[in-house]
Amino acid sequence: MKMNDLKPTWTLARRAERMNPSVIREILKVTERPGIISFAGGLPSPKTFPVTEFEQACAEVLRTDGQAALQYAASEGYAPLREAVAAMLPWNVDASQVLITTGSQQGLDLVAKVLIDADSRILVETPTYLGALQAFTPMEPQVVGVASDAEGVDVDDLARKADGARFFYVLPNFQNPTGRTMSEARRAALVQSAAEHGLPIVEDNPYGDLWFDAPPPAPLTARNPEGMIYLGSFSKVLAPGLRLGYIVAPAAIAPKLLQAKQAADLHSPTFNQRMVAEVLKNGFLGRHVPKIRALYKSQRDAMLAALTRELGDLDVSWNAPDGGMFLWARLPEGLSAIDLLPKAVERGVAFVPGAAFYAEHADPRTLRLSFVTATVEQIDTGVAALGQAIREAIRQ
Amino acid sequence: MKMNDLKPTWTLARRAERMNPSVIREILKVTERPGIISFAGGLPSPKTFPVTEFEQACAEVLRTDGQAALQYAASEGYAPLREAVAAMLPWNVDASQVLITTGSQQGLDLVAKVLIDADSRILVETPTYLGALQAFTPMEPQVVGVASDAEGVDVDDLARKADGARFFYVLPNFQNPTGRTMSEARRAALVQSAAEHGLPIVEDNPYGDLWFDAPPPAPLTARNPEGMIYLGSFSKVLAPGLRLGYIVAPAAIAPKLLQAKQAADLHSPTFNQRMVAEVLKNGFLGRHVPKIRALYKSQRDAMLAALTRELGDLDVSWNAPDGGMFLWARLPEGLSAIDLLPKAVERGVAFVPGAAFYAEHADPRTLRLSFVTATVEQIDTGVAALGQAIREAIRQ
Repeated sequence: MKMNDLKPTWTLARRAERMNPSVIREILKVTERPGIISFAGGLPSPKTFPVTEFEQACAEVLRTDGQAALQYAASEGYAPLREAVAAMLPWNVDASQVLITTGSQQGLDLVAKVLIDADSRILVETPTYLGALQAFTPMEPQVVGVASDAEGVDVDDLARKADGARFFYVLPNFQNPTGRTMSEARRAALVQSAAEHGLPIVEDNPYGDLWFDAPPPAPLTARNPEGMIYLGSFSKVLAPGLRLGYIVAPAAIAPKLLQAKQAADLHSPTFNQRMVAEVLKNGFLGRHVPKIRALYKSQRDAMLAALTRELGDLDVSWNAPDGGMFLWARLPEGLSAIDLLPKAVERGVAFVPGAAFYAEHADPRTLRLSFVTATVEQIDTGVAALGQAIREAIRQ
Repeated sequence: MKMNDLKPTWTLARRAERMNPSVIREILKVTERPGIISFAGGLPSPKTFPVTEFEQACAEVLRTDGQAALQYAASEGYAPLREAVAAMLPWNVDASQVLITTGSQQGLDLVAKVLIDADSRILVETPTYLGALQAFTPMEPQVVGVASDAEGVDVDDLARKADGARFFYVLPNFQNPTGRTMSEARRAALVQSAAEHGLPIVEDNPYGDLWFDAPPPAPLTARNPEGMIYLGSFSKVLAPGLRLGYIVAPAAIAPKLLQAKQAADLHSPTFNQRMVAEVLKNGFLGRHVPKIRALYKSQRDAMLAALTRELGDLDVSWNAPDGGMFLWARLPEGLSAIDLLPKAVERGVAFVPGAAFYAEHADPRTLRLSFVTATVEQIDTGVAALGQAIREAIRQ
């Protein structure tokens, strides 16, 4: 009897049926074609990566404590890095509350494991971060979208849906995908309403430091730390390729997040944690992040100017984000961003159709434009091409 | 109304109740006390870490392609590293089948997500790797132990339990915790029986390269690649602090593992993948791994000699592993390794009680001794202390 005659019985878990390839990652593959100007990816500008500082930090870490930097380590994370994170945050956080994660994406995976049962109801913004939907989905929740507008979440709609929900996932600063910032009034109302309903909040803040003219209002978690899990990241202020993020969680669930972390990958890379702790010394971010802000602001301005120039006479709307990496646009009635994409790619420009970011009731007219990966010249060329593609779609 | 008056309702997922802190990681915390000789951890000897090569690789990677090395990247992994893995494996593997993971622990987490539903039956060796139990448990399986002896798994017992099981998890080379190697005859019978029952196998092989006198028999996966998932690791042949491992999976489930990987942490650190790809060039492992083998063999020999000297007159048994990092011992009848541990720690030596490694029906007399972290001198001192603790326990 040959092995080939015997088929193994691979029975997939039910959750695997709900997993899908990331729309964005599939689009990114298309846009790697040379000559395509991509507004699609959420890739920070590589110009902002502090390569020289990382070179020095690598050498220093390996020279002074190489063996420890390459060994297994505590699941909680490297103590000096946890202390640096605690010191960075604008409310009273002890280093013992900080759990270092393999990117903040892992933070979402751990939250899902610890808080979601099959058919648990969870609440998200409309629209919301696609990666969060992907992290939550394998634990088989019912994902319910809460109405949101330019100021952030609709607190009345949240209150209607809050009872029995495991948590509300929210990205208050320069949101992915919309670039929106939640107003101070809306934050205060949200925190109050969530507390009244006993609704935990999972606050994701990867972009909060990337403000252009003024810092955003204080994080939600700063207002009620016992009721919230806070997720942060080094991907946007240093570099994403190191995969380092962090969770700050209240004592009620921190031990379970730590146990889930142990089971998921034992710990985040020791070497990377030490490198970042080394780079952070002497207030590096205070000198470095303003440069990222200035660059991204100039690119946002270029995109806004190009949009006005190329699309100003059409029934296309877009917002003017106060920070972050993304801008949100809406096509004229009757058009679909999904249908537009291949036509835009033919003309040399890519974006992400907004439909990918909705838990339910997608608006097919929406699209996400990243203004940080392309140069100002590419933004001009790319928005012109986008304008041509939209005009052609309108005519058809 | 103050926030403090309003308690958030943190409802943990059912799976969170089944999560527990790793016994080993808790013991490791105790053994970090200065002066304790630890046979407890599964820590490779830091003397074997190629620090100089990593220094050169870091500098090279950041100098030649620093921006790409610090950027987001494909979830599948860095192509040259995937190619290097495919080329290393002793059967016909295409680079496109290799998924780079954040340590092989993440491989176990992804397998659990893709193949385990609540109450799915899965099979493991007796005893088995604790980290695998921790990775599988959150998906709420019924974990069934299959009888095993010094030659490996009992194939008749496996056949009785195979029908309807989602997979059999097995570590054939220098197993953690027992140090056992599965014989050629047992491998052939296992692969045949699994194929007849349509039972998928998850083969974990972190230690296979660490043989002392002769290589172990070929991997199970080489004999029936369509029926098996293979997990490998760079932690034991290079360094664990980089958290890099890999999965080779058949086409039937590879796409789902990739989607689970995307959702878990987007991708493993780009920088680490490039560093390791750089270090692997020009056949580095072929020169490096023999040094690890020689060191670990000398330490195994030292531990065997010390055990014979210190415990030879007692009713204590132990095996003589042909590779890897661990040795498995059994105390005299009536003794418990869990009760022995605090007495041993008082005398300055630590180990892991074997009970932690059983899915069911733990043998309380067993214990795991790592011979690779301590020096030869420490092994002599530590085994003498262990002998004293056992003698004292026998007298009581």
